[in-house]
Amino acid sequence: MMEDLIKFKMNADELILQALREDITSEDISTNCVMKEAVMGSVQLIAKEDGIICGLHVFKRVFTLLDEETVVEFKVNEGDQVKVGDLMAVITGDIRVLLSGERTALNYLQRMSGIATYTSKIVKLLEGTGITLLDTRKTTPNMRIFEKYAVRVGGGKNHRYNLSDGVMLKDNHIAAAGGITEAVKQAKDYASFVHKIEVETENLDMVKEAVEAGADIIMLDNMTPDQMKEAVKIIDGRALTECSGNVTRENIEKMKDTGVDFVSSGALTHSAPILDISMKNLKRI
Amino acid sequence: MMEDLIKFKMNADELILQALREDITSEDISTNCVMKEAVMGSVQLIAKEDGIICGLHVFKRVFTLLDEETVVEFKVNEGDQVKVGDLMAVITGDIRVLLSGERTALNYLQRMSGIATYTSKIVKLLEGTGITLLDTRKTTPNMRIFEKYAVRVGGGKNHRYNLSDGVMLKDNHIAAAGGITEAVKQAKDYASFVHKIEVETENLDMVKEAVEAGADIIMLDNMTPDQMKEAVKIIDGRALTECSGNVTRENIEKMKDTGVDFVSSGALTHSAPILDISMKNLKRI
Amino acid sequence: MMEDLIKFKMNADELILQALREDITSEDISTNCVMKEAVMGSVQLIAKEDGIICGLHVFKRVFTLLDEETVVEFKVNEGDQVKVGDLMAVITGDIRVLLSGERTALNYLQRMSGIATYTSKIVKLLEGTGITLLDTRKTTPNMRIFEKYAVRVGGGKNHRYNLSDGVMLKDNHIAAAGGITEAVKQAKDYASFVHKIEVETENLDMVKEAVEAGADIIMLDNMTPDQMKEAVKIIDGRALTECSGNVTRENIEKMKDTGVDFVSSGALTHSAPILDISMKNLKRI
Amino acid sequence: MMEDLIKFKMNADELILQALREDITSEDISTNCVMKEAVMGSVQLIAKEDGIICGLHVFKRVFTLLDEETVVEFKVNEGDQVKVGDLMAVITGDIRVLLSGERTALNYLQRMSGIATYTSKIVKLLEGTGITLLDTRKTTPNMRIFEKYAVRVGGGKNHRYNLSDGVMLKDNHIAAAGGITEAVKQAKDYASFVHKIEVETENLDMVKEAVEAGADIIMLDNMTPDQMKEAVKIIDGRALTECSGNVTRENIEKMKDTGVDFVSSGALTHSAPILDISMKNLKRI
Amino acid sequence: MMEDLIKFKMNADELILQALREDITSEDISTNCVMKEAVMGSVQLIAKEDGIICGLHVFKRVFTLLDEETVVEFKVNEGDQVKVGDLMAVITGDIRVLLSGERTALNYLQRMSGIATYTSKIVKLLEGTGITLLDTRKTTPNMRIFEKYAVRVGGGKNHRYNLSDGVMLKDNHIAAAGGITEAVKQAKDYASFVHKIEVETENLDMVKEAVEAGADIIMLDNMTPDQMKEAVKIIDGRALTECSGNVTRENIEKMKDTGVDFVSSGALTHSAPILDISMKNLKRI
Amino acid sequence: MMEDLIKFKMNADELILQALREDITSEDISTNCVMKEAVMGSVQLIAKEDGIICGLHVFKRVFTLLDEETVVEFKVNEGDQVKVGDLMAVITGDIRVLLSGERTALNYLQRMSGIATYTSKIVKLLEGTGITLLDTRKTTPNMRIFEKYAVRVGGGKNHRYNLSDGVMLKDNHIAAAGGITEAVKQAKDYASFVHKIEVETENLDMVKEAVEAGADIIMLDNMTPDQMKEAVKIIDGRALTECSGNVTRENIEKMKDTGVDFVSSGALTHSAPILDISMKNLKRI
Repeated sequence: MMEDLIKFKMNADELILQALREDITSEDISTNCVMKEAVMGSVQLIAKEDGIICGLHVFKRVFTLLDEETVVEFKVNEGDQVKVGDLMAVITGDIRVLLSGERTALNYLQRMSGIATYTSKIVKLLEGTGITLLDTRKTTPNMRIFEKYAVRVGGGKNHRYNLSDGVMLKDNHIAAAGGITEAVKQAKDYASFVHKIEVETENLDMVKEAVEAGADIIMLDNMTPDQMKEAVKIIDGRALTECSGNVTRENIEKMKDTGVDFVSSGALTHSAPILDISMKNLKRI
Repeated sequence: MMEDLIKFKMNADELILQALREDITSEDISTNCVMKEAVMGSVQLIAKEDGIICGLHVFKRVFTLLDEETVVEFKVNEGDQVKVGDLMAVITGDIRVLLSGERTALNYLQRMSGIATYTSKIVKLLEGTGITLLDTRKTTPNMRIFEKYAVRVGGGKNHRYNLSDGVMLKDNHIAAAGGITEAVKQAKDYASFVHKIEVETENLDMVKEAVEAGADIIMLDNMTPDQMKEAVKIIDGRALTECSGNVTRENIEKMKDTGVDFVSSGALTHSAPILDISMKNLKRI
Repeated sequence: MMEDLIKFKMNADELILQALREDITSEDISTNCVMKEAVMGSVQLIAKEDGIICGLHVFKRVFTLLDEETVVEFKVNEGDQVKVGDLMAVITGDIRVLLSGERTALNYLQRMSGIATYTSKIVKLLEGTGITLLDTRKTTPNMRIFEKYAVRVGGGKNHRYNLSDGVMLKDNHIAAAGGITEAVKQAKDYASFVHKIEVETENLDMVKEAVEAGADIIMLDNMTPDQMKEAVKIIDGRALTECSGNVTRENIEKMKDTGVDFVSSGALTHSAPILDISMKNLKRI
Repeated sequence: MMEDLIKFKMNADELILQALREDITSEDISTNCVMKEAVMGSVQLIAKEDGIICGLHVFKRVFTLLDEETVVEFKVNEGDQVKVGDLMAVITGDIRVLLSGERTALNYLQRMSGIATYTSKIVKLLEGTGITLLDTRKTTPNMRIFEKYAVRVGGGKNHRYNLSDGVMLKDNHIAAAGGITEAVKQAKDYASFVHKIEVETENLDMVKEAVEAGADIIMLDNMTPDQMKEAVKIIDGRALTECSGNVTRENIEKMKDTGVDFVSSGALTHSAPILDISMKNLKRI
Repeated sequence: MMEDLIKFKMNADELILQALREDITSEDISTNCVMKEAVMGSVQLIAKEDGIICGLHVFKRVFTLLDEETVVEFKVNEGDQVKVGDLMAVITGDIRVLLSGERTALNYLQRMSGIATYTSKIVKLLEGTGITLLDTRKTTPNMRIFEKYAVRVGGGKNHRYNLSDGVMLKDNHIAAAGGITEAVKQAKDYASFVHKIEVETENLDMVKEAVEAGADIIMLDNMTPDQMKEAVKIIDGRALTECSGNVTRENIEKMKDTGVDFVSSGALTHSAPILDISMKNLKRI
Repeated sequence: MMEDLIKFKMNADELILQALREDITSEDISTNCVMKEAVMGSVQLIAKEDGIICGLHVFKRVFTLLDEETVVEFKVNEGDQVKVGDLMAVITGDIRVLLSGERTALNYLQRMSGIATYTSKIVKLLEGTGITLLDTRKTTPNMRIFEKYAVRVGGGKNHRYNLSDGVMLKDNHIAAAGGITEAVKQAKDYASFVHKIEVETENLDMVKEAVEAGADIIMLDNMTPDQMKEAVKIIDGRALTECSGNVTRENIEKMKDTGVDFVSSGALTHSAPILDISMKNLKRI
């Protein structure tokens, strides 16, 4: 997994700085009470739960944004499976920086690792089904760039990033246009030709109309496994199929042979519990 | 519960706009494909799970920031217990605004309601113990103002807001100062006198030293119920006591007669699942 | 053509305000010298050249951002063909606002109308060829949202908005991946499935490889008309085709029967001359 | 020509970053598809047209803002006349940075060089006339600092930067004050004494009144060559003279012996075509 | 004195909001403790010292930025001489807004009125001398737009606004250019012709060289009254003269017949004490 | 005194950059007129008055923000007493940077040193009284972080930073709650338990009610020395006492044996004159 400096410079740094400012509106009083001078020290990053680690570079960036002299030496790689007690990194620098950045750095790392861990569990459930797991736009406000990345690290794939880089025609769009055929036509006319056009369907008639209209992706919403199988048969490879909804072990059993291409799940980003991680054993050096 | 306009103007509006911009980097293509003109419509906000509703004014603000003409009529009050199927609000305005704002508005509302709901459950477990439930700084980056508020709506109380408005002397601060007594002395010297001074202790000797040094709040970290009882006895009303850590039903049973004043829980903000809520029945008017 | 309030709120307003601040770093000295009080007046917006008018709502927004009381009454619609001398709008408000906003408002309107006018001329040249005209990312920095919109008003279509909403594999991407087949494979693996994958090709072998690899769009770069015809035959409807390059009358003649789907032109946004427009006949009311 | 670091830090960097963010709202998908790790490479900057090169430091800044390790070695100097095919620079660094920054860097360089080239052509037409060529405020929104600089590199001079650093009394200001004499008086009273006061005149009576009133600069608007000569005679060195308007070869012929000091031209910034420049021959190193 | 809405929109509003955010990083806790709902009330603005009132519109803007429904009814005009005890305004609105905005509103009003009052005293000392009083760039960081305005309200005039709208050649600039003559020449060549060129001189030889070189303004630095008289004689109306330095009653006596045009004083903005003003008699309505 | 890098990164840098941009909206014209290339030089920072020096790191930051290569070598420490003529620092770097940053750097340093100097004088007056001197929120807008720090350097202590990190119940809050007892109760219920609760009292009955209600700090407003003594007796160590108001030598005499703990003074930040400091003897190296 890469450390994409460009993404940091363009999008992530500002969010990380803002998060730090949320936590330090004037100064870190506690630290300034007792340390008037820089004191060099190091601290360990340790897993307190098993899981997939994600967000190491964001974790590091919190400290280097506070003080570019801070050194973070990783013992694991992004996306690695870690076990409780594993030493994942050693952070070395001004102890004041280590203390002031700790909470924000862990808030990112724990949440991103939580999402990666949760995603990887669902991906395992889908193994062998030929179905690809997708995220949604149900992300925490101002966390999308981190959360969608965590889904990828966990083995899932990303659906569209936002309202500006994909076309998804839902019931209300269809109603506004006066039908699926007309909606797809208007979308082809208006949207850039680089965007695929997805149509949300609720029954087989809609599926038929969507595929005839030239939709690139057809979402099967709230259908039974049998309906899904039938829909896949109707579509017959002329469009990709996405099943949206609450993925559970039972559903997955039923989906296994429906033949849909993708399943999307909002829970990956909105309800994954964090992965417990802590910074320990700070010592002067 | 109030609609604090000043907080919106000073802090929340910018975050909400930023979240909207995260979702709309150029335009809402799907909506613009099919609606070239404003069309008035209304849509309902409906609970899909039982829980405590929180964030109604943030939900509304998303739409009024997009278009100040949007009208949101609430059927419930902030902090109300809602049941699955309850109609909570009717939103009326340009359908393009309703569609473009929907996801961001729900992302806030669902998360805030999830935290309020989860908090209220823990508060109930503590009923009759005399113990007050507190949040922590383990909030989602750039969501603190919303998440700490949701804890209050759920019946909890807030610990310090950030590193700048409270003094908490942890092991590393104590080590840097050369002991609890010296750390408290330096804190009293440096920090504004409006801040209480909290000291984190791990054993009874530390408790004794902290209370003698004049700490206002003493955190009992990783102590057994018996140790906590002993600590409370030692402190004897000279300082407030906070027990930090993983609150579960079992812990609470054991804590019931320890006599501590506060329990703080990071899970309230970092691991509460969302409350499922949806916008339905959009129709032209 | 619509007045997309959401786009203004999310993206355009900030740019327009920034442009106004570029022109007013402390105050409009000349106006403040002679007008200490608001004086109501009106002024006319008049075409000084024939062309397609574009940017009326941006023009208006400049004034309403300075003073929301300003009234702009349009006499033409966005996208209309105007003739020299045509009265296009009457702007009414505090004369100080009319004077301070004039230059910025016209700088936007003239540039956007210039692009729309120029685009519409090229579109006419392509009439009957079945070829769709596209823009590129060769826009003026911090003007993309306005310039790509102007291309649409002029009858063209938009290529991808930016590096984040489309996949375009050029020679260097192909080299990095180790060939077209591998590059397309990596793109399908990495990019969201909502994005089409475009491959830039320079000869027929590359075309063959790209279409076999499953590219959605194939760009034919620097090919002769005969090569293009051959490429279209090879592709045989399995991918869309885009011809990139300097569109002139002669080229177009030669392209007419090549069968390509799209032609993209950077000149639309980087070299269109402005359309001359002025504000005249200011009078007190 | 200098590389003015202060101007970058104060004004240009933010605009350049904003332009990069316009092009990268989440990530450069195409590049990230195929390059997970940094790969060092170099690329050449080559002129595709003859012209005056301008914006080299802005071009470089795009890459160093993305990654400060990028090295740009110039083969030409700012303001040099270049020929088609000239190697102007070699850029060395992470290939991902070279690819992601290419378009934005060229968008600046091509536009600035286009303006410098166009300006230098008009300056040549004025050679020997004793007339100095000026730009105007007809710049592209949020590009003024770059465009006015390009005019200087092309051999022109700058008129006032914006509404806050110069006083220009036009017909509406004069009307508001109740006449030229009164307007100049109010301007001398209100504006800082470091600003010269310019008055726009349309006939010789206005010229007389302006010079008597103590205007520092008198703009001759829409006058015939004979009227201009007469105006210059009336003014008799008591004020500078500026002729505003559409400068063409014919006009210039007629202006040659009018004796005006300055001619200002909006076309320099609003209608100069870009200079074609490209980045070529990227290779790994 | 005017309420310049454009200046507010372009420059002042952001600074005022920032000042409010400096005072409210999360919420106004005290007010929120006791007022959960809006309660309408009014409060009086009362002078506690004699002086010149300045900043009324900034004072008002603080409240309307918090809540646009707040009504501020002025009883005095900007620039009026007020007496201790004078009622200057009545502010009516949500009491929470009145309380939360009070301090920031008064911080602006007291400082601006302090500067206006102090300036008007120095202006009186200069009455009859024919000398105009100027401010300098010695303003409080991020307060320039308010402080320079206050100087004008107090009867002074503004020197250049900042480094970008005036040319002032000091000893180091002169040394860099290789002498006054060369420095003025380079300035005429580089700077826009709308800017006057000021040269700082320390003796009569420099004065002679500056006036010969064509300086528009000559600053006489640290000269005796006799030297100044001599300098004025040498200059003989060919340039304006500015005397910079510590203006006191004694200096002014000596300057009275030196014939200099301007005196500039940093003390106007950096050392004026505030004018004491308070908000009193808040009552519910 | 420390150089708190974290505070700079989180809060100060942005304000300093903004102040620089206030002074350089496009470029430093004077410097650019005469220096097209970097020229290395050094300049001395010299005290022109006796006083306490404060803001050295802010002073330095102005130059390193303009150009990180600038070297500032201090000859004194933050908080030192300096004498007129003392050499306090040598600044070495590109002369253009030294000239462009000079004014902003001095504006900060002079103001901060003025506050530290003034504060230290009042602190001396209070020596031996056992009374601690506090600042208030009467700071210059957008200068609080610098001004409150300067108070500490001068030997004073800080009252609350802003409305969000302390609870102060004034007459209007008390009235809204329906009395002191109720207001304190509501504050204990609403505010985080880390904040002390301060109540403003005007007579002994209020003092009694406040101390009974459990206020942590009681402000004695406008009381005579005898009343204050009586109040201190009533409070009897159950709360801290703060006397607010115009501190003068006479008052202090009278306060000496009142037994109050704190005195707060707005004048420290709103009316301290600057300390005169200059940059001199610039030379090329």
